[in-house]
Amino acid sequence: MTTPRYGMILIISGPSGSGKSTLCSRMFEEFSGLEFSVSCTTRAPRGEEKDGIDYHFLSREEFEKHIRNNDFIEYAEVHGNYYGTLKSEVFDRVEKGIDVVLDIDVQGALQIKKKFGSDPEWLRSLESIFIAPPSYTELEKRLRGRGTDAEASILKRLANSKQEMTCWNEYKYIIVNDDLATAQKALSGIISTLRLRSARFKEAPFHEK
Amino acid sequence: MTTPRYGMILIISGPSGSGKSTLCSRMFEEFSGLEFSVSCTTRAPRGEEKDGIDYHFLSREEFEKHIRNNDFIEYAEVHGNYYGTLKSEVFDRVEKGIDVVLDIDVQGALQIKKKFGSDPEWLRSLESIFIAPPSYTELEKRLRGRGTDAEASILKRLANSKQEMTCWNEYKYIIVNDDLATAQKALSGIISTLRLRSARFKEAPFHEK
Repeated sequence: MTTPRYGMILIISGPSGSGKSTLCSRMFEEFSGLEFSVSCTTRAPRGEEKDGIDYHFLSREEFEKHIRNNDFIEYAEVHGNYYGTLKSEVFDRVEKGIDVVLDIDVQGALQIKKKFGSDPEWLRSLESIFIAPPSYTELEKRLRGRGTDAEASILKRLANSKQEMTCWNEYKYIIVNDDLATAQKALSGIISTLRLRSARFKEAPFHEK
Repeated sequence: MTTPRYGMILIISGPSGSGKSTLCSRMFEEFSGLEFSVSCTTRAPRGEEKDGIDYHFLSREEFEKHIRNNDFIEYAEVHGNYYGTLKSEVFDRVEKGIDVVLDIDVQGALQIKKKFGSDPEWLRSLESIFIAPPSYTELEKRLRGRGTDAEASILKRLANSKQEMTCWNEYKYIIVNDDLATAQKALSGIISTLRLRSARFKEAPFHEK
């Protein structure tokens, strides 16, 4: 029996070096009915990035029009570029029972929590996971391990990641990614469990006869 | 790294015929750090039941003294016998990080939700799972399948189970026990996931150096 249900809005944050991207991409391979919310940005596409897949690439004018129209769930300006999540990316899908993943930073997550954290409809939908590296030492090792970045860039990302890690307890669940397979199992378990939240079932998930 | 944490208070309810007892006993085999709260009752021990293991068997006088002392988290009188959960069974263990399972009926669960549902310390600890059979038809089949009970007793339990099933959405999670292995996996996933709730960690679960 497949019971109609509301989707969840699943915020996943994790600093640079947490392994969040790897974990998320495996999660999408494993689960159906789970979709990324594609963020908007005013920064230029990099490398292979495709409009509408990796980001919605917007001009500053377009982005600011959305701000004025109150179209964003959250948005922020980082290093001179806007980033934001459109309501239209989320609400229709949640209504249809699709689980929408918001891969956003701590700043965006806190903004959502503050704006919508006490709204009953959001409370029904909103879930959040923080992915952390096991230690600052390991974090630094991972950031240096990439071997491609300038020292100044590494130090900046390290400081930023540590700062984000202080917000771990603003999230409902925390996964410490020490071992990738274990962390992957934890993430799968969370998704499966959150699909059993009774608040999101539109009717009883058993036959009433 | 093992981070000190508060235990959870996990209410598990499921009507007669849901398979709750089988699921719970397997859960205790699988997880350590998970303990049953032993209920008190004034009914006489049956068969192999042991005092302090299956129940704390109390006299009516002893039970009523605990009521007057406000020692119970919840209690009820059912068919002329008292049943109840002592605070002392729960709180010390939660503080020590032990997860305490309350195998109680819907009436008791609703009582706890009403009494403590908005208390911040309880909110941090309280989790609840409802286990349901896949349909009323299957429920009846299971209750009759035991083959030992009188018709009147079967009909009474069937009516009671159906009544309990209307309260499924008072619980945070619901498991529909259609297939035992699948239900078992769902229950394990819920326990593992609830152990990742950041609210219950007493400090950051990663090394801050």
